[in-house]
Amino acid sequence: MNISKRIDNMKFSEIRKFIPFADEAKERGIKVHHLNIGQPDIKTPEEFFHAINNFKEKTLKYENSHGIKELISSFIKYYKSININLDKDDILITHGASEGILFALLTICDYGDEIILPEPYYTNYNNMAKMAGVTIKSFRTYREDGFHLKNKEDILKNITPRTKAMLICNPGNPTGVVYTEEEVRLLCDIAKEKDLFIIVDEVYREFVYGTEKFTSFMHMENVSDRVILVDSISKRYSACGARIGMLVCRNKIVSNEFMKLSQTRLSVSSIDQIGAASLIDVTPQYLIDVNKEYEKRRDVLYEGLISIPGVSCEKPSGAFYIIVKLPVKNADHFTKWLLTDFNLNNKTVMITPAAGFYATEGLGLDEVRLSYCIDREDLKESVEILRRALEEYKKIFD
Amino acid sequence: MNISKRIDNMKFSEIRKFIPFADEAKERGIKVHHLNIGQPDIKTPEEFFHAINNFKEKTLKYENSHGIKELISSFIKYYKSININLDKDDILITHGASEGILFALLTICDYGDEIILPEPYYTNYNNMAKMAGVTIKSFRTYREDGFHLKNKEDILKNITPRTKAMLICNPGNPTGVVYTEEEVRLLCDIAKEKDLFIIVDEVYREFVYGTEKFTSFMHMENVSDRVILVDSISKRYSACGARIGMLVCRNKIVSNEFMKLSQTRLSVSSIDQIGAASLIDVTPQYLIDVNKEYEKRRDVLYEGLISIPGVSCEKPSGAFYIIVKLPVKNADHFTKWLLTDFNLNNKTVMITPAAGFYATEGLGLDEVRLSYCIDREDLKESVEILRRALEEYKKIFD
Repeated sequence: MNISKRIDNMKFSEIRKFIPFADEAKERGIKVHHLNIGQPDIKTPEEFFHAINNFKEKTLKYENSHGIKELISSFIKYYKSININLDKDDILITHGASEGILFALLTICDYGDEIILPEPYYTNYNNMAKMAGVTIKSFRTYREDGFHLKNKEDILKNITPRTKAMLICNPGNPTGVVYTEEEVRLLCDIAKEKDLFIIVDEVYREFVYGTEKFTSFMHMENVSDRVILVDSISKRYSACGARIGMLVCRNKIVSNEFMKLSQTRLSVSSIDQIGAASLIDVTPQYLIDVNKEYEKRRDVLYEGLISIPGVSCEKPSGAFYIIVKLPVKNADHFTKWLLTDFNLNNKTVMITPAAGFYATEGLGLDEVRLSYCIDREDLKESVEILRRALEEYKKIFD
Repeated sequence: MNISKRIDNMKFSEIRKFIPFADEAKERGIKVHHLNIGQPDIKTPEEFFHAINNFKEKTLKYENSHGIKELISSFIKYYKSININLDKDDILITHGASEGILFALLTICDYGDEIILPEPYYTNYNNMAKMAGVTIKSFRTYREDGFHLKNKEDILKNITPRTKAMLICNPGNPTGVVYTEEEVRLLCDIAKEKDLFIIVDEVYREFVYGTEKFTSFMHMENVSDRVILVDSISKRYSACGARIGMLVCRNKIVSNEFMKLSQTRLSVSSIDQIGAASLIDVTPQYLIDVNKEYEKRRDVLYEGLISIPGVSCEKPSGAFYIIVKLPVKNADHFTKWLLTDFNLNNKTVMITPAAGFYATEGLGLDEVRLSYCIDREDLKESVEILRRALEEYKKIFD
């Protein structure tokens, strides 16, 4: 009576081990700035709460397995506003983007099949792949390149006869990369050449800054039967706690098969769907304002970080993360030390060691991922805390 | 670029193919009584809606992956009221019972491992097992026995070195069986003897009628490290649309591993959790009244059914389903015909052919599963519709 090898091979959240230290710091009266999580502090649009407060049914029933009509219609409208024309059968509502990725993997991969993706990548992809019995092959991208794609050969050499799909996060978590149209085209060409599906996680679509142009895989010609788009309202509308994601796929064979999986888990939260359907009524200015706010935060964080001696990073173009090289040997040790041994005027920061985002053992040991989901004043203060902490850390451990 | 063999081997919901015919009937002005689904018409307690209407946070954040404290505390209280003492680490909140079963299978089974369960069983177990790459071996139970366990040997002979668990639904969907204490003990003895986990789906726990006694696997001695309880508020509080289930396991190694899976999908709906946490404040009379109502419905349906010539069924002791043998050769054909070709005063019924609940090809072809989730008057009318339909069907097709 043992646990499975499968679960034994999965990992706990990397950040989990630091939570007790953060809690202890808080108990000692230390204020902890959280640069470790992608939990926006932005207000969820009021429309969401109004809609759920107006729910008048007396019985909270199962909804259709594929999602309520109002929500699917609202997403069709949203996508139309960004020049993606869909019909209702192209959209399946999921329990967040996470379930969407799992469904996509189960539908196109058999046990032992492979997917390729750029390293570093969102850690949870590892466990999702293991849940589906799928092997991840990664090709490297580099901080010095802003995590843009290096070259076609690097990608091609990881593709085997068992490769079924590429999994791309654009804009990228944890890197903040926004792929250029040329890069998107390159990935599409490879997918066609090697007959692969393209699973693309575009949950940070609205978080692309300045003059940077976002190219959706849904806009690319000749791959419409290959693209499986994973999306969510969590980041876009700061509604992470409403577990509403979606799978978008124009390949009718694939989207029809998704139904087997959605029927198996019956339905997605009725109340959350009702709230989410109302978001189409949110003024477009909301997303514009949120985007501007994040852009300012990025600038504050980036400018602050590069002013710290020994710190290197590239300015990210999207999402709300940045990978930062620190002048430390072991970012894991430094992360813990920040919580257990350091404070600046009774304040410290919680950060995420980046090694967990790499598949290759030994990479990212001196890097961390920072998120900029807190306000600008706190970000400025966080930079000062990091600056002073690194000075002191160097004195003690160098 | 193909779909996986895995998804190809999964099935769509059996009932799905009849939905267009039901919709067409409704368009023709026919009233359709739904005896096909386990969607209670009972009101969800008002406490649920009050709680969510009182939610005052401005940002809908991710909650803990294991569930909010208030909800876990409320379940500890609920279980204590039925003499099951738990501590907070024993409980994980899941997206409905469905996610709980998937998590249990992934945690204790590797690809190709097996589980055993009594046939007929809840159809969705098939797809859940396939999602996890687990093979189902079933042992037969019979309508004539009220679907009680036949004998130990029948069960034992399906256990192989790859069997990791038994999966038991008690009270049973689709059978309505409530296992006696002796049967529960027998299953526990087998689990100990063969070193198996016991995954037990007790979502119909509160739906046990008359003087029948319910024995929870959580009450059994010497198996507390083997029992993985799957539960949900969906049926208990008529809150199917709030996707709130839970896994309960006293084996700390197992419950700790569940966390890897819950962290991978981040969290369960915040709003639904807040609503669900309020249900502990619902008066105990609610469950008593609901139980009494279902008992009366069962009696109406059962008495009506056995008065129809050629119909056979045993009186179920729990849940809200009954498996019924009809005097037809092909229940699938009859189900469709009821929707397309029959009505009694512009009314008809939608039923579920039972073959899909059997793993063995050819079983249950003349059986249907009926649910009694509609009110007594409609049930009486449904019985009359079935009586007249069977008379007419016999004239046409015999």
